[in-house]
Amino acid sequence: MKRKVLVVHGPNLNMLGRREPDVYGEKTLSEINQVMTEYAHQLDISLTAFQSNHEGEIVEAIQAAEDDYQGIIINLAAYTHTSVAIRDAILTLDLPVIEVHLSNIYKRESFRHHSMVSDVVTGQIVGLGAKGYILALSALAEMIPDAEPS
Amino acid sequence: MKRKVLVVHGPNLNMLGRREPDVYGEKTLSEINQVMTEYAHQLDISLTAFQSNHEGEIVEAIQAAEDDYQGIIINLAAYTHTSVAIRDAILTLDLPVIEVHLSNIYKRESFRHHSMVSDVVTGQIVGLGAKGYILALSALAEMIPDAEPS
Amino acid sequence: MKRKVLVVHGPNLNMLGRREPDVYGEKTLSEINQVMTEYAHQLDISLTAFQSNHEGEIVEAIQAAEDDYQGIIINLAAYTHTSVAIRDAILTLDLPVIEVHLSNIYKRESFRHHSMVSDVVTGQIVGLGAKGYILALSALAEMIPDAEPS
Amino acid sequence: MKRKVLVVHGPNLNMLGRREPDVYGEKTLSEINQVMTEYAHQLDISLTAFQSNHEGEIVEAIQAAEDDYQGIIINLAAYTHTSVAIRDAILTLDLPVIEVHLSNIYKRESFRHHSMVSDVVTGQIVGLGAKGYILALSALAEMIPDAEPS
Amino acid sequence: MKRKVLVVHGPNLNMLGRREPDVYGEKTLSEINQVMTEYAHQLDISLTAFQSNHEGEIVEAIQAAEDDYQGIIINLAAYTHTSVAIRDAILTLDLPVIEVHLSNIYKRESFRHHSMVSDVVTGQIVGLGAKGYILALSALAEMIPDAEPS
Amino acid sequence: MKRKVLVVHGPNLNMLGRREPDVYGEKTLSEINQVMTEYAHQLDISLTAFQSNHEGEIVEAIQAAEDDYQGIIINLAAYTHTSVAIRDAILTLDLPVIEVHLSNIYKRESFRHHSMVSDVVTGQIVGLGAKGYILALSALAEMIPDAEPS
Amino acid sequence: MKRKVLVVHGPNLNMLGRREPDVYGEKTLSEINQVMTEYAHQLDISLTAFQSNHEGEIVEAIQAAEDDYQGIIINLAAYTHTSVAIRDAILTLDLPVIEVHLSNIYKRESFRHHSMVSDVVTGQIVGLGAKGYILALSALAEMIPDAEPS
Amino acid sequence: MKRKVLVVHGPNLNMLGRREPDVYGEKTLSEINQVMTEYAHQLDISLTAFQSNHEGEIVEAIQAAEDDYQGIIINLAAYTHTSVAIRDAILTLDLPVIEVHLSNIYKRESFRHHSMVSDVVTGQIVGLGAKGYILALSALAEMIPDAEPS
Amino acid sequence: MKRKVLVVHGPNLNMLGRREPDVYGEKTLSEINQVMTEYAHQLDISLTAFQSNHEGEIVEAIQAAEDDYQGIIINLAAYTHTSVAIRDAILTLDLPVIEVHLSNIYKRESFRHHSMVSDVVTGQIVGLGAKGYILALSALAEMIPDAEPS
Amino acid sequence: MKRKVLVVHGPNLNMLGRREPDVYGEKTLSEINQVMTEYAHQLDISLTAFQSNHEGEIVEAIQAAEDDYQGIIINLAAYTHTSVAIRDAILTLDLPVIEVHLSNIYKRESFRHHSMVSDVVTGQIVGLGAKGYILALSALAEMIPDAEPS
Amino acid sequence: MKRKVLVVHGPNLNMLGRREPDVYGEKTLSEINQVMTEYAHQLDISLTAFQSNHEGEIVEAIQAAEDDYQGIIINLAAYTHTSVAIRDAILTLDLPVIEVHLSNIYKRESFRHHSMVSDVVTGQIVGLGAKGYILALSALAEMIPDAEPS
Amino acid sequence: MKRKVLVVHGPNLNMLGRREPDVYGEKTLSEINQVMTEYAHQLDISLTAFQSNHEGEIVEAIQAAEDDYQGIIINLAAYTHTSVAIRDAILTLDLPVIEVHLSNIYKRESFRHHSMVSDVVTGQIVGLGAKGYILALSALAEMIPDAEPS
Repeated sequence: MKRKVLVVHGPNLNMLGRREPDVYGEKTLSEINQVMTEYAHQLDISLTAFQSNHEGEIVEAIQAAEDDYQGIIINLAAYTHTSVAIRDAILTLDLPVIEVHLSNIYKRESFRHHSMVSDVVTGQIVGLGAKGYILALSALAEMIPDAEPS
Repeated sequence: MKRKVLVVHGPNLNMLGRREPDVYGEKTLSEINQVMTEYAHQLDISLTAFQSNHEGEIVEAIQAAEDDYQGIIINLAAYTHTSVAIRDAILTLDLPVIEVHLSNIYKRESFRHHSMVSDVVTGQIVGLGAKGYILALSALAEMIPDAEPS
Repeated sequence: MKRKVLVVHGPNLNMLGRREPDVYGEKTLSEINQVMTEYAHQLDISLTAFQSNHEGEIVEAIQAAEDDYQGIIINLAAYTHTSVAIRDAILTLDLPVIEVHLSNIYKRESFRHHSMVSDVVTGQIVGLGAKGYILALSALAEMIPDAEPS
Repeated sequence: MKRKVLVVHGPNLNMLGRREPDVYGEKTLSEINQVMTEYAHQLDISLTAFQSNHEGEIVEAIQAAEDDYQGIIINLAAYTHTSVAIRDAILTLDLPVIEVHLSNIYKRESFRHHSMVSDVVTGQIVGLGAKGYILALSALAEMIPDAEPS
Repeated sequence: MKRKVLVVHGPNLNMLGRREPDVYGEKTLSEINQVMTEYAHQLDISLTAFQSNHEGEIVEAIQAAEDDYQGIIINLAAYTHTSVAIRDAILTLDLPVIEVHLSNIYKRESFRHHSMVSDVVTGQIVGLGAKGYILALSALAEMIPDAEPS
Repeated sequence: MKRKVLVVHGPNLNMLGRREPDVYGEKTLSEINQVMTEYAHQLDISLTAFQSNHEGEIVEAIQAAEDDYQGIIINLAAYTHTSVAIRDAILTLDLPVIEVHLSNIYKRESFRHHSMVSDVVTGQIVGLGAKGYILALSALAEMIPDAEPS
Repeated sequence: MKRKVLVVHGPNLNMLGRREPDVYGEKTLSEINQVMTEYAHQLDISLTAFQSNHEGEIVEAIQAAEDDYQGIIINLAAYTHTSVAIRDAILTLDLPVIEVHLSNIYKRESFRHHSMVSDVVTGQIVGLGAKGYILALSALAEMIPDAEPS
Repeated sequence: MKRKVLVVHGPNLNMLGRREPDVYGEKTLSEINQVMTEYAHQLDISLTAFQSNHEGEIVEAIQAAEDDYQGIIINLAAYTHTSVAIRDAILTLDLPVIEVHLSNIYKRESFRHHSMVSDVVTGQIVGLGAKGYILALSALAEMIPDAEPS
Repeated sequence: MKRKVLVVHGPNLNMLGRREPDVYGEKTLSEINQVMTEYAHQLDISLTAFQSNHEGEIVEAIQAAEDDYQGIIINLAAYTHTSVAIRDAILTLDLPVIEVHLSNIYKRESFRHHSMVSDVVTGQIVGLGAKGYILALSALAEMIPDAEPS
Repeated sequence: MKRKVLVVHGPNLNMLGRREPDVYGEKTLSEINQVMTEYAHQLDISLTAFQSNHEGEIVEAIQAAEDDYQGIIINLAAYTHTSVAIRDAILTLDLPVIEVHLSNIYKRESFRHHSMVSDVVTGQIVGLGAKGYILALSALAEMIPDAEPS
Repeated sequence: MKRKVLVVHGPNLNMLGRREPDVYGEKTLSEINQVMTEYAHQLDISLTAFQSNHEGEIVEAIQAAEDDYQGIIINLAAYTHTSVAIRDAILTLDLPVIEVHLSNIYKRESFRHHSMVSDVVTGQIVGLGAKGYILALSALAEMIPDAEPS
Repeated sequence: MKRKVLVVHGPNLNMLGRREPDVYGEKTLSEINQVMTEYAHQLDISLTAFQSNHEGEIVEAIQAAEDDYQGIIINLAAYTHTSVAIRDAILTLDLPVIEVHLSNIYKRESFRHHSMVSDVVTGQIVGLGAKGYILALSALAEMIPDAEPS
């Protein structure tokens, strides 16, 4: 069976490529997901991408992940800085989780310098644009057990 | 007519008993609700339990409570520390509200030491596990007017 | 075509007029919307009012606004003080936005003195009750391009 | 007898229109006063404008206001952030007072985010330029008793 | 042999019922102790109540408790907020300890929001008046080993 | 019956005149009490002086004061800065209380700048040496009801 | 020659007795000055009272004091909390200065708890109403050299 | 035409040489002005010195400077640490401004370590006594356009 | 006459060796005192050990020390972090005082990192267990005048 | 000509693999450099690795980099949290710089949560062990201009 | 013998003129040293310039200065904000020291607003570019004893 | 084989005895090392003393210690308060380390009250002058394994 990875995109990331391209880049979210899916395919990983603007939906997506996935990539966007609920959902998991930020959050408003989840995830990749997702996938691939023969 | 009490369980409490049992105990949420319902029955109280991972749903459950209930027990979990919206919903009520936390929040991360609602509820019960709900119900029973004969 | 303005009402504002009238006034939300609509009519503006208790829904309403509206009036209520997600949604817009608060937030709890959006909106009107919405509409009307002939 | 409103302009506002037009707009103070006076006339209000760079003079203008005016509009400029004396003068009044700031003070230096008077005035209008004075006058007009027949 | 519980009442609680009844209720300390003793009797628990205005005496009462009691209920009153010595005495124990506050300390002065012992006790019950002692006893009764037959 | 005033001297004040005369003056405590007693005699007031190094004893002296005295003068010395228990004892009283400090506490270590009781006493006299006690007595004499004829 | 004392009254104290009598008492400033003058006469002291709402005028009154007076009583009102300039003027003097506050500033807004001059004056008298001035005069009288025979 | 420089001396500097010579040196203000004038003469600069204890007067002197001067030297003394109004007056100028402090403000009270204008002036010279004014003039002379032939 | 040293042991140190041996070591207080007494004997010093759980008693023991001892060793335990009264008692002495802590207080709760007396004692020895007392005695022996022949 | 990348390893990283393998992994620095070199070879990049325990040497290595390299990978270890000098050296460069941390610094002491360089580098990779260097190289390879044919 | 002055240039100042000319000016360090040497020659002062990127080397240069120099000019650059070691080296000197900063550090990142040495040097010159060194030399020349005849 | 102890002296300690003898005593570093060596000889310990003004050299001396020494005494002087690099070097060791400070750092500037290494060393000895080194050696001698017969 193939290894499976969940990618969680937080609020306003559905606007990627359409607004503030100087901050977040010019790729749309579906373009980013497309590139990730292709790279996942090379790594023999099945990738599911999920986007929501609702904190509660993200909580539930993460709660449901443990049974179906071997690793998670999260870009919580605004909820990075405010959500204890998502932190708690991550705490209930026993999976590797990598936090990605497209922009360098340390060059922005000071409230963006603190992440509510940074100390409960495995690692972070910050400021490297859409490439950050690919790197996260590369790192996850080394952490999760190889697919067993079906 | 019977007195009615609403119990509001916040985000991730649907995972009770399944994850981190060393922190939150081994009972599932439905087991806890079952025990509470039985105890409510002894006190001649009708108990409704509600769980949500969505801040907005909790706001609305509390808004709707005043007409149907004489008291509320809340365990807001992660939203304890971040939700002004739920605080405001409580402020619109004229009912006794008791805040319950299963774990001793003062033994955990410092951001869990502060509750956004502690000064607008009637009282708190902290760190006594599922027993805390029973104690809250016992306290509420003394605060709310006896059921009038139907 | 008529100019269009979106009014976004945040959590618990659906309770206006029914709870805490000493803080928020005695008008219900639909009465306020009615008065605004009439005044908008005088200004030859088409006004849409939206209320939600859900942060994610407000994010999405604001995301969707740019294509359909020339200006926005927001009263984020509790989310004023906590929502980075709504701030980010506003940042993706290129429209004038005016923040309104019914009560004087500086006379209330200290956590209400800080707004997460005050530095990304055009201006604020605070403490002038339902009149504040009318003033905001008056200000917006001067900022947005006149309706072109259809 | 006509209703009377006092407008108090604080330090450096005598330079309006001549310096930093990108921050404060291009209208001079006398042009702003002229527009206000005309609008006051429509509302059947007699308007007096006062500007001073001296904290003590502003204190005394406010002390003297109660006997002669039914409402006050203040733009304390720099003294907004430092003057307890003006706050105390306002506290001795029993009149509605509306605080106006031409620029959005939340987009500027952090020491400008705090007003020493915001919790002792009726309301604030911030960041709407010279239009803010007109809106303040509109709001005041609804708050103060109608002129009695002379 | 019967299970034994020690109740420690801190400074000024000897004044209960005589001063500030709006804050602390109308029951005197001996009335509260009487009610607790009766309830303890129902639970087959032997209860000893101790009050002192002296930090050192409270330290010593707690030091001496381990040999004679199976659980402790404490209301440290003012010493809640200042006493490291009592915290240290609790740390030397291996007994369940429940902290009780009659009033909701979060509605009072900010220095009362922090307890020096909250993270070294088992749990807290706050703001439920004299009923809080009864609930604490109920909780303790479930935590401590049943009395062995004498 | 004569009016009665209690003077409470806090920790280390028994050393007055013997240690650090440059800070606290050269008069011993009994000399100060003697001068106060004489001045009280002129005002037809009966004065009782009490000194203790024990927080609990001071709590109890204040608790007991209401029945026997019409006013209190306190110099809590070190406990000024740390004692919530004494603050609480004062809160249970319904008597005028004047706080005295021999030295100017604002010229000393920063932790001495804050008094735990300053907002629950009637007034303070600071930095005027032993004369401060006399002034406090003078002020109290005007606040407390005249002695009724015996 | 008679000893001379200067009394400096700060901003808004010209309104005493006319506004907020519950905070500052019912006596007007001239009544207070009258009582002080009479008491000064008993002490064979010549008293000059000065009031200003202007920080600069108070600075200059204090600068000029050393040549003409042997002691100063100041109630800086609002400037207590903000004026480094008046602090510096006091620092240039070599005279005893006593700071008086009519109300108990520790029962009011937190910014009133700090005085910019408390560590450069001789002592403070706080919260004892107009009586505070009399006590200050009494204290000063003991500090300044007796009048020499003329 | 000669280049012109304005020197603004803040509150209490009129006392220079007469009070606290160990802090501020023994030269009077007029002696300092005399030395500066002579040095300005060498540089072919016309120098005007202005001293005021009134914040408002300093604001106005700075407002008026742009038309008549090519550079400003300021020693705001106490207003350095408190005046937003003077900062705003400087902000309206388009001239080089050099801030001078006679004493090393970093060796004094901590509130003197912060200047409200340091980030809006060209540079600072601190702790070099009256020589600091001469150095400031020397620096200004290099910054301002040479006098054109009259 | 022999030199004399007082050792003051603070609250809960009477429990040494019986509770939390992993933090404080396995020696009881009397064993520690015994070892110190023997070492003192070698140094020809007479040693008195005193333990109390009462802040007031420790204050009084220190007050009384100057006449009878040439040096003091203190381990104030919990009172290290809270007692201004003991600090003040030390300030009245003119003797060398060495502060000892058995455990390394910097590895424990953050409130234990600050000592209220560290800047008024001669020196500190921290984290070296019971050996710390011996080192303190060795250091004191070099600081205090040799015993004179009796 | 080949593209060139400099890798800068900060203080104590020469101990990698020999000390605290649970925190930093079991690979030695030369093993890590070997793996990076091999991966660089695949990317047709020439990689130079540099380690120093001296802040000044790291400053100079970075100063010298611009002429010889097209990109830099830095793991500043302890200097991450303290070095303004290295930050300034980076600021003088016009090259992409990626910051790597082997361990998740947010799970460690709070002073490690802040990086002095995070806002002046291109991006960060944190908590992914030695793999982080490989990911950084992969990201750099996409940012720097392809090697021109030699 | 000639008077001698040491100039210490801190880290990254060897890059002057080559990087970030908009912040630090276009002159190279050797050009600045050349101009200083010429001006020193006019003042009959022998000037030695020293630059290092190593904190320890700067410490040692300052330690060695007292025997050979009569005054020091320092621009510690990044070490200004972090080095206690250099502060301590300055504290061991008995020479006048003037701190120079080329740029106005108050217009830059907030961590640059604080200097670790500002309260142990004689004075500071900030924001006046390379001219600042010349002014510092001019000030030093007046402070140090004239050269004695050789 | 003899037990071996390393003594590390930090920056500016090479100046001991020559500068600021009132703070650090009159002994030179070589005199202190001589006394320590003699005392070590008595304890059958071989002692090596090392001094450096360079953070990097101290890091390396500590890195190298584990193979050759059984214990370390450090006086990091200025680096006590700033060096994470030295802290990290200590963390890589598995040896007892005792921190010594000659002066009582709590009587000095507030930035000296915090040590970056206090929670990673075994213990501290503060304020006891050169005697502190001897005491540290005495404590170390008890902690490290006896020399084996060679």
